[in-house]
Amino acid sequence: MEFRLIDRIRERTAQGREDVKLGIGDDAAVVAPPVGQELAIAIDTMVEGVHFPHGTAAADIGWKSLAVNLSDLAAMGASPAWALLALTLPTKPAEQLHAFIDGYAEGFAQLAQPHRLALIGGDTTRGALAISVAVHGFVPPGKALTRAGARAGDVVLVTGTLGDAAAGLHLLQRGARLDEGDGRVAYLIERLHRPTPRLSVGLALRDRASACIDISDGLLADLGHICEESAVGAEIEAALLPCSPMLMASFDDLAVRDFALSGGDDYELCFTVPPALVADVQTDLARLGCGATRIGRIIEGAGVRVRDAQGQWLEAAQRGWDHFA
Amino acid sequence: MEFRLIDRIRERTAQGREDVKLGIGDDAAVVAPPVGQELAIAIDTMVEGVHFPHGTAAADIGWKSLAVNLSDLAAMGASPAWALLALTLPTKPAEQLHAFIDGYAEGFAQLAQPHRLALIGGDTTRGALAISVAVHGFVPPGKALTRAGARAGDVVLVTGTLGDAAAGLHLLQRGARLDEGDGRVAYLIERLHRPTPRLSVGLALRDRASACIDISDGLLADLGHICEESAVGAEIEAALLPCSPMLMASFDDLAVRDFALSGGDDYELCFTVPPALVADVQTDLARLGCGATRIGRIIEGAGVRVRDAQGQWLEAAQRGWDHFA
Repeated sequence: MEFRLIDRIRERTAQGREDVKLGIGDDAAVVAPPVGQELAIAIDTMVEGVHFPHGTAAADIGWKSLAVNLSDLAAMGASPAWALLALTLPTKPAEQLHAFIDGYAEGFAQLAQPHRLALIGGDTTRGALAISVAVHGFVPPGKALTRAGARAGDVVLVTGTLGDAAAGLHLLQRGARLDEGDGRVAYLIERLHRPTPRLSVGLALRDRASACIDISDGLLADLGHICEESAVGAEIEAALLPCSPMLMASFDDLAVRDFALSGGDDYELCFTVPPALVADVQTDLARLGCGATRIGRIIEGAGVRVRDAQGQWLEAAQRGWDHFA
Repeated sequence: MEFRLIDRIRERTAQGREDVKLGIGDDAAVVAPPVGQELAIAIDTMVEGVHFPHGTAAADIGWKSLAVNLSDLAAMGASPAWALLALTLPTKPAEQLHAFIDGYAEGFAQLAQPHRLALIGGDTTRGALAISVAVHGFVPPGKALTRAGARAGDVVLVTGTLGDAAAGLHLLQRGARLDEGDGRVAYLIERLHRPTPRLSVGLALRDRASACIDISDGLLADLGHICEESAVGAEIEAALLPCSPMLMASFDDLAVRDFALSGGDDYELCFTVPPALVADVQTDLARLGCGATRIGRIIEGAGVRVRDAQGQWLEAAQRGWDHFA
């Protein structure tokens, strides 16, 4: 069984890369890494009911399971090359499994192909639906972006808009229909299911961002990781958080702020830049079609503080949106 | 939570390697692959109740989840370097999770350390207990062993003994106690939980084996993969199958043969060698402390046939031991 399922995925994700010497179908894949590059390698697992709701379309699962990993490469400033897939599938009739696999492969390939990412290895097994993807990308020696370089005085920026995915999940869980809200519901749910890994942004931030992370757990949590690894603190202005018109038209201001501060799954990048470089970075990212918004600054100390539009510091309890609730 | 659990594993699996530029704790690991080597990369998932019985000790799970992957590298003739771990854990009280993690890391490290394998990345998530490990090894360009090179006339060999692990699982499922059978039960169950990846054998087979695979699904199935990928057939002599004294003393001849032909989980290597090289290969493997037994030969055609001690071909129904039954 295993072999045939993986074959179906292989057929649908074919990608000509000369550095892939042996792809899916043997005990291991064999690749030739490029001389003069380091490899960035990440692995992430998605479990049904935890990372995506029951009933999520197979193609959306395929897209997102790759997107969350490519987002890790984006946060390192690495360009993607190869992926491996470990797929755990419930016992079901063959035709249901095949339909799932075909949908999964379609969504995976839609994201993989424009990035010339090759699926080089896979393993299928039975159990509760879960997907682990491991990705490999290239980065010049010593140039990988990390969480550890932020310094007091650096400016904190984020790409795109925040809170959309968490709002989409909230709507899904409340049984919202895609055709509600003049397309707003569909937009927010699309942001949940089909996040865009900011790969070209990550490349553009090399040599300029002092620290970088992708926002998977929510801005506060992920900026908190930068602060911890860099041994600094951060101050955020809630009024500066970039939020989509679709989000703002769908929820009141307080909910929007909570989604933007604490909602996960946006897979935007949060990064820090010395003040002198901010304008150039913003210009360059805009050329890539990606907005980047200043939302605060790095300070001496520890932890992330948030100031509201009236200049008051928010209490921890006021920023505690839990998108699993 | 995730970060702290992985930290516990990181502490227990520390491994100084100069080619690891950035280990666990950022969005991705960064490594510097050696110039002039290709990378062999494999991923395998183990699910509780499918790949190991409920109640298996955490340390055994840690060992085996790495062993099955290292076995894939062995089958390619690659030497191990780096691993990533994706651990899905049920929701449990913190102290139970910590005890599991500590045990898991201990078993993992016992196998990783002698091979200087570094755990460079990890992800923990909640869900039904499952473990995906991805491993990376080095192999000189063009030297990877594959399943595809067997030719008519080649001799089929296997390392070690066959059937022990499947017999161990059978005994576990029948509620056998470790102290039964003068140590035989304990031996067979140890073979199930603590397989030895044949890494040094894989290296010794480079340039000599025409095809190689590790036996995870059973000899017939895995030799069948070699036949399929090499477009050949194989004939096996049941009387030649190497079986341990502990297995032979525990079951009747027919059950022993079934375990050896169709039982999975032994993680021995099955490989093919041109006749002129067989004696040298056996001598060299013996020096590595590993017996290698001739069990049959490659023929023109397709599929795997088995002849019993009386020279009769076995029917498919006579070799159908299902170790999940």
